[in-house]
Amino acid sequence: MSKKIFFTLFFLFSLANVLHAQQGYTLWMDYAGSNPQSRKNLKFLAKSIYMEAGSDILKSAQNEIEIGLSGLLNEKLNFSDTMENDNSLVVSKVSSLKGSWSQSMDVSSEKLGNEGFYIRSRDGGILVTANTDIGLLYGVFRLLQFIQAGHHLEDFSLLDAPSVDLRMLNHWDNLDRTIERGYAGFSLWNWQKLPEYIDQRYIDYARANASIGINGTVLTNVNANALVLTPMYLEKVAALADVFRKYGIKVYLTARFSAPMEIGGLETADPLNTEVRNWWAQKTNEIYKWIPDFGGFLVKANSEGQPGPQNYGRTHVDGANMLAEAVQPHGGVVIWRAFVYSEDDETDRAKQAYAEFVPYDGQFMENVLVQVKNGPIDFQSREPFHPLFGAMSKTPLMMEFQITQEYLGFSSHLVFLPKLFEEVLQSDTYVKGKGSTVAKVIDGSQHNKRISGMAGVSNIGTDLNWTGHPFAQANWFGFGRLAWNPETKANDIAEDWIKLTYTNNKELIALLKPMMINSREAVVNYMNPLGLHHLFDTGHHYGPGPWVDNLGRPDWNPTYYHKADENGIGFDRTKSGSNALEQYSDEVSYTFGNLKTCPETYLLWFHHLPWDYTLNNGNSLWDGLALRYQEGVDQVSEMIETWEKARNFINNDQYHEVKMLLDIQLKEAKWWRDASLLYFQTFSGMELPEGVPKPTKSLEYYKSLKFPFAPGIRPQWD
Amino acid sequence: MSKKIFFTLFFLFSLANVLHAQQGYTLWMDYAGSNPQSRKNLKFLAKSIYMEAGSDILKSAQNEIEIGLSGLLNEKLNFSDTMENDNSLVVSKVSSLKGSWSQSMDVSSEKLGNEGFYIRSRDGGILVTANTDIGLLYGVFRLLQFIQAGHHLEDFSLLDAPSVDLRMLNHWDNLDRTIERGYAGFSLWNWQKLPEYIDQRYIDYARANASIGINGTVLTNVNANALVLTPMYLEKVAALADVFRKYGIKVYLTARFSAPMEIGGLETADPLNTEVRNWWAQKTNEIYKWIPDFGGFLVKANSEGQPGPQNYGRTHVDGANMLAEAVQPHGGVVIWRAFVYSEDDETDRAKQAYAEFVPYDGQFMENVLVQVKNGPIDFQSREPFHPLFGAMSKTPLMMEFQITQEYLGFSSHLVFLPKLFEEVLQSDTYVKGKGSTVAKVIDGSQHNKRISGMAGVSNIGTDLNWTGHPFAQANWFGFGRLAWNPETKANDIAEDWIKLTYTNNKELIALLKPMMINSREAVVNYMNPLGLHHLFDTGHHYGPGPWVDNLGRPDWNPTYYHKADENGIGFDRTKSGSNALEQYSDEVSYTFGNLKTCPETYLLWFHHLPWDYTLNNGNSLWDGLALRYQEGVDQVSEMIETWEKARNFINNDQYHEVKMLLDIQLKEAKWWRDASLLYFQTFSGMELPEGVPKPTKSLEYYKSLKFPFAPGIRPQWD
Repeated sequence: MSKKIFFTLFFLFSLANVLHAQQGYTLWMDYAGSNPQSRKNLKFLAKSIYMEAGSDILKSAQNEIEIGLSGLLNEKLNFSDTMENDNSLVVSKVSSLKGSWSQSMDVSSEKLGNEGFYIRSRDGGILVTANTDIGLLYGVFRLLQFIQAGHHLEDFSLLDAPSVDLRMLNHWDNLDRTIERGYAGFSLWNWQKLPEYIDQRYIDYARANASIGINGTVLTNVNANALVLTPMYLEKVAALADVFRKYGIKVYLTARFSAPMEIGGLETADPLNTEVRNWWAQKTNEIYKWIPDFGGFLVKANSEGQPGPQNYGRTHVDGANMLAEAVQPHGGVVIWRAFVYSEDDETDRAKQAYAEFVPYDGQFMENVLVQVKNGPIDFQSREPFHPLFGAMSKTPLMMEFQITQEYLGFSSHLVFLPKLFEEVLQSDTYVKGKGSTVAKVIDGSQHNKRISGMAGVSNIGTDLNWTGHPFAQANWFGFGRLAWNPETKANDIAEDWIKLTYTNNKELIALLKPMMINSREAVVNYMNPLGLHHLFDTGHHYGPGPWVDNLGRPDWNPTYYHKADENGIGFDRTKSGSNALEQYSDEVSYTFGNLKTCPETYLLWFHHLPWDYTLNNGNSLWDGLALRYQEGVDQVSEMIETWEKARNFINNDQYHEVKMLLDIQLKEAKWWRDASLLYFQTFSGMELPEGVPKPTKSLEYYKSLKFPFAPGIRPQWD
Repeated sequence: MSKKIFFTLFFLFSLANVLHAQQGYTLWMDYAGSNPQSRKNLKFLAKSIYMEAGSDILKSAQNEIEIGLSGLLNEKLNFSDTMENDNSLVVSKVSSLKGSWSQSMDVSSEKLGNEGFYIRSRDGGILVTANTDIGLLYGVFRLLQFIQAGHHLEDFSLLDAPSVDLRMLNHWDNLDRTIERGYAGFSLWNWQKLPEYIDQRYIDYARANASIGINGTVLTNVNANALVLTPMYLEKVAALADVFRKYGIKVYLTARFSAPMEIGGLETADPLNTEVRNWWAQKTNEIYKWIPDFGGFLVKANSEGQPGPQNYGRTHVDGANMLAEAVQPHGGVVIWRAFVYSEDDETDRAKQAYAEFVPYDGQFMENVLVQVKNGPIDFQSREPFHPLFGAMSKTPLMMEFQITQEYLGFSSHLVFLPKLFEEVLQSDTYVKGKGSTVAKVIDGSQHNKRISGMAGVSNIGTDLNWTGHPFAQANWFGFGRLAWNPETKANDIAEDWIKLTYTNNKELIALLKPMMINSREAVVNYMNPLGLHHLFDTGHHYGPGPWVDNLGRPDWNPTYYHKADENGIGFDRTKSGSNALEQYSDEVSYTFGNLKTCPETYLLWFHHLPWDYTLNNGNSLWDGLALRYQEGVDQVSEMIETWEKARNFINNDQYHEVKMLLDIQLKEAKWWRDASLLYFQTFSGMELPEGVPKPTKSLEYYKSLKFPFAPGIRPQWD
C-alpha cells in the first residue's frame, strides 16, 4: 500500500513555536531577525573587534555588540583587547583613539557633545567614537540598527548628537501597579519584590530606551503618592536606578506637594514655610544618598484636585523654586507641569494654562522646566499647538506628548503617533517671525534656552509585547527619535521602524508606511473630525459620549466642548467667543480666526458654525461632518485591506494578532460614527448624506453602554 | 604586535539572549530543551506518524506532536494519512484502530474510561490510544513528557486514567484584572480586548493545563461580581471557552448570590422565591446559549460578607439546589463552598463549617459538590485535615487546595506544595476504619460518590514565567498531577518536574529534589512551627503580625489563634477547650487529643501548653519553639547552599533569578523568626536558647512595618 506524505516539518518549528507566543518582546531589537543576505558583506566586522573597556555603560555597549552583532552577522565575534590598525570594528572614545584610528576621526569632537557619536567606515573597518561612554553606547545601538535595517555601510559616515537634553518617559504608574491611562497591562515596577529581585524586564526596558536615546524616566504617576518618597520605597527606586544607570538613564520621581504633611508629619505644605522648605531639603538629600544621580522631581500641582502652592495662597513659582532649591546642590531639576485649569474660571479651559503661567515667565529658578502638553486641552487626536509655546521666552518649556492612547482607541487602535507629534513640532508659533516652530522652542534654539526637554507619557506595561498593540511599539520608538531630534520626519521613523521590526522588503514598506502615516488622520476622522474635541465617555474615555452633560464641572462635559445646538456646532474661540486666539501671535491668530484661512482640520475648534455652513468643497457642514466620520471608517477598512496584502511578508502569528486588533478598530470606528451622528442629528435635524449608512442601533442604545472595568481609570484612593 | 583573542561567541548567543528574558514562559513544555543524547534512539518515531484527524481536540493533539516531537527528536516529522502496519507512531482512538495496531491494543478499553489513555511500544513503533479524543490528547502529552524526561520507551506500556472527575483551577481574578491573593502579576483575562482579541497566552494556558490533565477552570473570583453574568461579559467568556474547549477544558463562573437583584432588577435573591428561581433558570439558559458546554457555578455564600441564602432565612441546601436545578438540564454542576464562619459564633472558627454543613448531608441535589478547604482554618502552611472529610458520606466533597501562596511567602518563597497536598490527602479520617484516607474521600472511592473533584486556587498571572517564582510552576504542575491521581507521590512529582523543567541529570535531581521536598517543612518552621497558625499581618497577609488584636471580629485576630499569655501558648481544642476534636473520628480525636500521641507538628493547634512544657526531645516548649524558628531559617540557608551547587547544571539566568528570590526568602524567614520570638518573649519572659541569635531590631520596629500596596488584597469595591 502506498503512503501519502502530506506534511513535513523542520526541527526549527518547535523553536519558532516557543517564540511566537513571545512575539514582540524583543521590540525593534530582534537581532535574530530578517534579511541575512543584506548582511553578508558586513561579516568582516566580526573579525577583530576592539571595544573600550571600563564603566558599566561601556559594559552595556559591549553586551549589545555581543548579542546584536553576533546575531545580525550570524558569525562568531573575535574581540581584541588592544586597539590595532587592522581591527574590523573599533568602539572607543575620541580621547582613547590610537594610531590610524585616531586619524580616522576626521570631524571636530566638539560637534559630538556629551551624548553624540560619530560612525564612519574605512577600508576594512568601522569606527564608532564619542566623547563619552554614553555616546559610545548610542553609537553602538545606531550601528546595529543600520546593519539590522540592511544598510551596507560602505563609504559611510554619520555624526549624530541629540538636540534635546532631557528625553524622558513619564510613567503614570501607581504603587499598586495599576497604570492611569495604561492599556498594555500593568506597571513594570514590581515594588513588592524590589529591591532584591531585578526583573529581566527592567534591563530590557533600559536597553530599548537607550537604543532610541531616551535618558530619563519618571517612575510614578503625576497624580502622586507620597509614599514613594519614604525610605522603604527609595530603596526600591535605587535598585531600579542602579539598573538604568548602566544605560545612561536617570530616574525621576513625582513629588506630591503635600508630602511634608502626609509622610513628614508637618501641619502645612506651604512652600514659604521654613519647616516645609527644610523638610524638602532634607528629603532631597536623603534621596541623593540612595540615588547619587537622581534626576529630579516632576510635579502636578493645583490641577484636577492635586495639592499645590495655591492651597496656601502661593504661586507656581513659589512651589517650583522651593523644590528647585532643594535639588540644585545635587544637580537635579524640577519639572513643573503647566496642565492646570481652575474650577472657578468658566470662560475657556483652553486659555487657563497660558493665563496662569505667562505672568511667571522669567521668575523660575534656572533648574526648573515647565512641562506643557502639546495642545491646550488634553491629548486629543488633533489640537492646535499650545499657546504657551509661543509665550514664555525666558522659561525652558518641555514638551509633553502622550504616547499611551487615552483618547486614541487605547491599545486596540493602530494609530501612528509620530505623525501627530511631527504636526505639533512643525507648527509655527511666529513668536520671532516665520519659522519659529514649536520644535525650535522645544530644542531651546529659539530662545537660547539653557536646558531643553521632551517627555512622553508611556504606553508601556506588562503585556508580553510591552505596548499591547504591536504597532504601538512604533509610537514608543518614534517618540524616542523625536526627543533626540525634533526635526525628524514621521515618514523616516515609520520606515526605520518597519525595517527593524519586520523586514526591509520594499514591497512591505510600500504597504505599511502609508498605512501608518494615514492612520492618524483616520482616528481624527472617526472620532473627532473638523476640530471637534473631548467627546469621550466619562472617566475611562473609552468610546463616544458627546451627550454627557451631567458632570460636576462644566469643562468636564463633552457638551462644553462641542456646544452643539439647533443653530450649529463648535467652540467659538474668536473675539466673538472666548477669544482664546489672542494667546497666539498675530499671524497664528489671524489664520485660525478667519474662516477663509482657518484649516478645516481646526474649524470647530475655533468657530461655532451653522449646520448649513458651506465647507470648501461645497458640502454643508452637516454633510461634511458626516462624510468625515465615514471617511474614518473607510480608512480603517483600507488598513485591513492593506494588512491582508502584507500577509505575504510576515508570519502567520504576526498577521493574526494585528488582524484581530484591526477588526476591533473597525467595529469601534463605526461605533464612533454612528453614536456621534445620531446624537448631533438631534440638533441638526438633517438626513445623513449619501455614502453614510443609517446606523443600525439607536442613540439610546449607545447612551446605555457602560464600561465599569475599562482599564486605565484614576486610582480609587486618589 | 600579537593579539590576544579573549572572547569568542557563537551565533546562537543572540537567540539565547532573546529567550533568556522569557525564560520560564514555556513552563514544563520546553521541547527545545535538554538531553539530546537520551532521545537518539527515539528518532525512528518521526519516520511515519499516523494521527487520527477530526475534532478540534484532535487538532490540538496533532499540534502538540508537531511542535513537541519535532523539537524533542530534532527531526523532520513525516505524517501518513492512513494507518499502516509500519507506522512508527499511531495516535488513534480504540474504535478506529486497524490491522496490527488493533492487535497491539492488549488491554480492556473499559479501563481507559472517558479520559484515560494507553501507550505501548511494539517493534518499531509506539501506539497511543484512548476511547475519546481528550484521552488521546492526554496520551500525546504524556508521551512527549516521557521522551522529554529521557525515558527510552523500550518494552514500554502505560495505562493511565484519572481517578477524579473535576480537576479544576479556581482563579480569584477580578474583572479589573487584579487577582485576590495573586502574586504573579495580574489576571490573564484581558476583558477589555475580549471577545475579538485572543491572546496567545490563553492558548498556552490551555496547553499547559491539558498537559497535566486539568479539565476545568473557574475564571472569576469567589468574591464575585455579578456583571460577569451579563451579556457583555458572557460574550467574552464564550470566546475564552472556545479556546479552552479545544484542550478539553470547561469554563465555570462564580455566581454572586445576589445577582438577581444586582443585574436582574429583582427585589430579593431569596432562593425559594419563584421569580428568583425563574431568573436563575433563564440566566442559566442564556449562559448555555453562549457556552453549550458551560461547566457550572462555583459559589461562596454567606461567608466573609458575601450574600447567600441565609440572608433570607434559607439554608445552604436551598441555595445550592436552586442553582443545581437551573444547570441540571444542561448537564452542569454547582460547587458550593464550605468555607463559612459566622460572626455570631465565637467558640472556635475551626468548628463552624462542620457545624453548618454536616446536618445537610444527603439533602443536596445530585449535581452539587461541596468544596472544602484542606484544613479547617485557611490554607496555613500546616493544618490537620478538615473534619468535614470524615463526615459527609452522602455528599461529593471536592478538595480545595490553595496553589497561590497567600500564607506561604507569596511568590518570593520557594515552597514545594505537593508535599503539603500529599500530607493532607494521605491523612486518615478513619471514617470507615484505618485506611479511610482523605484521598479516597476525594476520589469518591470511600463512599462510592457519583462525582468527584479537586480544585486548586491558581497561582497564575501575567508574569512572563506565569507564576512569579520559577519553582512555583512546580506547584501548578503538581496540583494537576494530584488532581489526576490523588495517590501520586510528591517525590515523583518533584522528580518529573525537575526533568521536564531543567534536565534529567542525576546529580541535579539529587540536589533539587530534597531541596524541594524539604522546602515545605522550612516554611512551617520559620512561620508557624509546632501547630501555630494564622499569625499573619492584617489584610495582605505579608509577614508576621502575631500581635494583631484590634480587628472587628475576634477570629480575625492572630491573638485568637495563638492565645499566648504568661501561662503558655496554643489553642485548646480538646474537651477542656473548644472540643473541635469531637468533629473527628474517635481514632483521630484520641491521637490529636492526647499529649503523648499528638504529633508535635500539631501540638499548639490542639493544645494550650505552658512555656516550660517538656517536648519529646527534652527541650522546654519555649526553647523548642525558638529552635524551630531557627531551624526554618537554617533550612533556607541550606537551600541557598544547594542552589549554589546546582549552578553548574543550569544557565546563568536561571541561577540568578532563583538566587535573588532565595535571598528574599532568607531575609523574610529571619523577619518571621525575630518578630515572632520577640513578641512571644513578652509572655514567656524567657531567654532565647543557644543557637538562636538575638534579634537585631526591636519588637516595636516589626510592629511598625506597614505595606499599603502589598499585592493580592481584596478589591476595594467588594
